[in-house]
Amino acid sequence: MTLPKVLAFDVFGTVVDWHGSIWREAEAMIPGVDGNKFASAWRAGYKPAMDEVRTGKRGWTKIDDLHRLILDRILSDFGIALEEAKRYQLNRAWHRLAPWPDTVGGMTRLRRKFTLTTLSNGNLGLLANMAKHGGLPWDLILSAEVFRHYKPDPETYLGVAEIFDIQPDEVMLVAAHEDDLDAAKACGLQTAFIERPDEYGPDMTVSKGDLSRFTFAASDFNHLAEQMGA
Amino acid sequence: MTLPKVLAFDVFGTVVDWHGSIWREAEAMIPGVDGNKFASAWRAGYKPAMDEVRTGKRGWTKIDDLHRLILDRILSDFGIALEEAKRYQLNRAWHRLAPWPDTVGGMTRLRRKFTLTTLSNGNLGLLANMAKHGGLPWDLILSAEVFRHYKPDPETYLGVAEIFDIQPDEVMLVAAHEDDLDAAKACGLQTAFIERPDEYGPDMTVSKGDLSRFTFAASDFNHLAEQMGA
Repeated sequence: MTLPKVLAFDVFGTVVDWHGSIWREAEAMIPGVDGNKFASAWRAGYKPAMDEVRTGKRGWTKIDDLHRLILDRILSDFGIALEEAKRYQLNRAWHRLAPWPDTVGGMTRLRRKFTLTTLSNGNLGLLANMAKHGGLPWDLILSAEVFRHYKPDPETYLGVAEIFDIQPDEVMLVAAHEDDLDAAKACGLQTAFIERPDEYGPDMTVSKGDLSRFTFAASDFNHLAEQMGA
Repeated sequence: MTLPKVLAFDVFGTVVDWHGSIWREAEAMIPGVDGNKFASAWRAGYKPAMDEVRTGKRGWTKIDDLHRLILDRILSDFGIALEEAKRYQLNRAWHRLAPWPDTVGGMTRLRRKFTLTTLSNGNLGLLANMAKHGGLPWDLILSAEVFRHYKPDPETYLGVAEIFDIQPDEVMLVAAHEDDLDAAKACGLQTAFIERPDEYGPDMTVSKGDLSRFTFAASDFNHLAEQMGA
């Protein structure tokens, strides 16, 4: 197996800790809220909202706007009154998600040997603000917004190869989610599974399938760098 | 005047020295060629080729492919025979353009206070490879390729504000070209003119208009950083 040239990273959950970050920001802004449950409820609306766009039920809508639609609904579900300026500020918490402890160090190692890009459903402005906030050393920020398709649509995975004018198997998706990796593998990309056992918080665990179908499986970014000789 | 939040940089000529870089690469690859004239001829085909796309005469075509069309034509004009692999390699010289001496230091200063993005007609892969090659510390790489419009179409300048969800006057275009800055100003952006007297090589100088119409005028990126308190 030849090593890939470009590593394309899933972001929410793989690079940054959305659950812990949203939990903290929600509790800081809304007195008495259960931030743990609030974060899970917000994220639970994410896939159905994207699927509305993917199936054409909703026109192209960027994640900032999908997050806001879901936020308005769960504030109502939780019985929380929040003024407009605070809703805007809370919605922007997704621009300030904290990297996992190994993220920046592992990326810095990998970047010496490979080109690192995001491949996220997050919009470009969100990803750029997050990178500046967390010090994430990307070579390029790619988003569903560029391709006007959300993962797992093939246009996203194949789009990375097209952008760099390389073959699909010269790209490797790095992600903590097996469905994302399976979709990338079906498009001919190499794949690296990263374990993020705390992604969904303390109340939820995800059972793992057979990881041997992926090119690499690693406990964190440093472990991936080690396996790839970086 | 309030300082902008995002600085959007023109790239070819403003951030990197295309003329000197292409001159060197052409002479290294083609024995006996006049690299100075070759670089000027290659670049001369650039605006007409983009205008074909802008006016709809040609469908969306990325700069790598426009560069290649022009390269094939000027090789013929210069009477040079060059095999396919070398044509590909020479065309990729645009991915390896060298930064001006003040570029990386000036950007590093400006980046502490502002968000730095490209706003270039160059395609994303080209700009990402160039940034990795030259160590350019972008927060985001934006291209005509994202907007499917070439500068000076308004969709490009206004697109930067939309990506960051800010007002047009919270964005400042940084460029060495007055026509680019005038188009940005007409869209409500702030503007910074950068002097690049050597952009077109030793045989060509460009006369300057009244620079007082721009928000800033600077001799290089460090001079701009100084004026902006960065």
